[in-house]
Amino acid sequence: MADKNLPTEPYKGVRDFYPDDMAVQRYMFDVWSQTAESFGYARYDASVLEPAELYKAKGAENEELVNEQTYTFTDRGDRQVTLRPEMTPTVARMIAAKRKELAFPVRWYSIPNLFRYERAQRGRLREHWQLNCDIFGTDERAADVEIIALAYQTFLNFGADPSMFEIRINDAAGMQTTFSDANFFDLSAEQSRRLRKLTDQRRKLKVEDFEVGAADIFGADTHKTNLFIKSLDCPDPASYLAWISQNAQNPVENPLEYTGYINASEILDGLRTLGITNVVFDPSIVRGFDYYTGVVFEFFDTDPANRRALLGGGRYDNLTELFGGEPIPGIGFGWGDVTLRDFLETHNLLTADITAPTIMVAPTDPSLNIAGQKIAQEIRASGLSVAVDISNRKIGKKITAASDAFVEYVLVLGEDEIASGTYSVKNLTTGEQLSGTLEELCEQLV
Amino acid sequence: MADKNLPTEPYKGVRDFYPDDMAVQRYMFDVWSQTAESFGYARYDASVLEPAELYKAKGAENEELVNEQTYTFTDRGDRQVTLRPEMTPTVARMIAAKRKELAFPVRWYSIPNLFRYERAQRGRLREHWQLNCDIFGTDERAADVEIIALAYQTFLNFGADPSMFEIRINDAAGMQTTFSDANFFDLSAEQSRRLRKLTDQRRKLKVEDFEVGAADIFGADTHKTNLFIKSLDCPDPASYLAWISQNAQNPVENPLEYTGYINASEILDGLRTLGITNVVFDPSIVRGFDYYTGVVFEFFDTDPANRRALLGGGRYDNLTELFGGEPIPGIGFGWGDVTLRDFLETHNLLTADITAPTIMVAPTDPSLNIAGQKIAQEIRASGLSVAVDISNRKIGKKITAASDAFVEYVLVLGEDEIASGTYSVKNLTTGEQLSGTLEELCEQLV
Repeated sequence: MADKNLPTEPYKGVRDFYPDDMAVQRYMFDVWSQTAESFGYARYDASVLEPAELYKAKGAENEELVNEQTYTFTDRGDRQVTLRPEMTPTVARMIAAKRKELAFPVRWYSIPNLFRYERAQRGRLREHWQLNCDIFGTDERAADVEIIALAYQTFLNFGADPSMFEIRINDAAGMQTTFSDANFFDLSAEQSRRLRKLTDQRRKLKVEDFEVGAADIFGADTHKTNLFIKSLDCPDPASYLAWISQNAQNPVENPLEYTGYINASEILDGLRTLGITNVVFDPSIVRGFDYYTGVVFEFFDTDPANRRALLGGGRYDNLTELFGGEPIPGIGFGWGDVTLRDFLETHNLLTADITAPTIMVAPTDPSLNIAGQKIAQEIRASGLSVAVDISNRKIGKKITAASDAFVEYVLVLGEDEIASGTYSVKNLTTGEQLSGTLEELCEQLV
Repeated sequence: MADKNLPTEPYKGVRDFYPDDMAVQRYMFDVWSQTAESFGYARYDASVLEPAELYKAKGAENEELVNEQTYTFTDRGDRQVTLRPEMTPTVARMIAAKRKELAFPVRWYSIPNLFRYERAQRGRLREHWQLNCDIFGTDERAADVEIIALAYQTFLNFGADPSMFEIRINDAAGMQTTFSDANFFDLSAEQSRRLRKLTDQRRKLKVEDFEVGAADIFGADTHKTNLFIKSLDCPDPASYLAWISQNAQNPVENPLEYTGYINASEILDGLRTLGITNVVFDPSIVRGFDYYTGVVFEFFDTDPANRRALLGGGRYDNLTELFGGEPIPGIGFGWGDVTLRDFLETHNLLTADITAPTIMVAPTDPSLNIAGQKIAQEIRASGLSVAVDISNRKIGKKITAASDAFVEYVLVLGEDEIASGTYSVKNLTTGEQLSGTLEELCEQLV
């Protein structure tokens, strides 16, 4: 016996899933997995425990991130262990391990839980679930189109209308080139890094703060500052490149090919061919990670009340290099359960799922409980879900309780029913009553 | 770029789930959840992270266990955190938190992953998944019968025959009484504790070692030693009690009621009423945990090659006491994924699940990839799973690859098909070919 009572709260920043919330999670996970499988993606998984070196390998900056923002601890074998903060390093590890056996291109998905050591504050969770979809082993543009079309179709399968969300795409390599190249913005590596960081924060900043930040990076060159700010409204890669190279001394000949923005251009065309029209070019899409090497994209809620990106992803063509061997190209996205649920709630797309059994067998006396279970067993064999109310409540209370729990039918079981072999089930919504042998009732209810 | 290559192995003692293994996991989890839901159980979940105090609260012995056998670490807020080693404390916490709102009896299930800090050795895993089913808020015997019947039905739903497994039941309270009471074995508290421990290990010991251990506990009383050893073969609680009390000076009047073994007796009767006949009374079933207060049970594989318990559980009527308030009775069981998979493999009950899409669209040239995706999109709308082979392979290789991946149909897409709007799909097993518009094909394939 404890001296004082233990608290009943979960650990800070994580969630308990009572049946109602669990039903929502399962609904979301089911639509995710059914859609991914309809595109031929196979599900995989791994443990939440990973060697810490998997995240530290990319250098000192990463090591700091791992130490500060992840759950990392030392086990008794003196191994450093991390609770995975993202799935991509894990899947890269798994792909690299079986590179010789896998038949590329590989289409995989997973719905892992991920951990981040966030400072505990309202709405900031330390654990969340995330759909991860990836194609490995091809750098065809069609793969980029497909992965974006898969995310798009998943939205439709949740009942979303294309007007409720918008796809914004950019290209990490193109951005790198246009920021640094002499024919475009001609920035130093340091300026370019700062400008990417500023651009990444654009949606969180006030317009004037963003512009002041840009002016600070471009220095005295107010013309370029303005070019940059206006460039963010260019509707497609070609006009973006034309716009920002208008003052170049020797404009490059095929700017789309030269910068790599041909990819984004072809992807936009491909998506439109598939009837996906809520997609725009957006040169301010950066994505936080360093590992993107091609197209990057984010999906946004069009509801102004919900301005965060709903999901994001991109192409990374060197992800397995840490494990040695030839690089394996990949493209994928991650989509969190919390942002999805926000989106579904904002647009009234979430209908409550019922977790109750279809039929409740209610014995009139506890002495009939086992007889009730025998009957439940027989009904269950026809595929229906059945529970038995084995409590000591009076029969009226049992019926009320079943109704409160959204049970559809109740079967009151007394000595008479057992003796006669004739039973009645009552529909708790309509009040309609059906009578007959168990066989007859099952036939009508299934 | 890393100096040396990272290893591709997972962390020691945990598993990667590649699609083939993941398909097995999902099959097992699906049968688990479908069966639990057919009995009216609602699914819940929680985070793997729990406050360490949840496991330490039961005293010093527990604290040692927590420190030595669990993953416990201190977070940066100086909180001690444990990766849950079992689900029962978590569900007790959740039930206690909502005790005022929940409509008891509550039927819940979950499939959590659990962590144990095992010394790394062959076959010893540090993470496994476990089906947990519980009923809270009733101490009716019918609940005990139901939870055992649920586990039994789950075996049948995996395709098992009752001859493949055996249910063994005992009663923790009855065992306590018969070991200590003057009318039965009349052991001291310390002797009783040692005898429970020895009995718990019975299946792992050689017969002679078990008997030497028992003799050591009973001391000079060889008659009692023999009584005890023979008692383990008694086929039901009544004959067990009659056997071990045969030398009592004043035999108790209603030994089943007196010892509490009436429960086990009624449960055996209840199960047999439900047609469950592979159940036996076994006074040597102990279960490791201290918290059982009534019936305890284990399911065993009848294959002598696989002697470990497949699942186990029991009644605990004081589990929420650590959280204050009136105690809430409960009964439940836990069933691990590893022992289940062993069982299914031993009895040839596992048929490989296919993770491939139904149809592969194979464009004759990469320039037709987007057109292929358009066609895949249209077929998918009819509910079929479709992938597009966007690789650079020749068409013959694409068909071979699809066949190797167990794809059912391939649709070869060239300029002619697009121009005519007439397509052919080939069944890769039978060689049969179907032709027609997409609409016509979908009608035939769905």
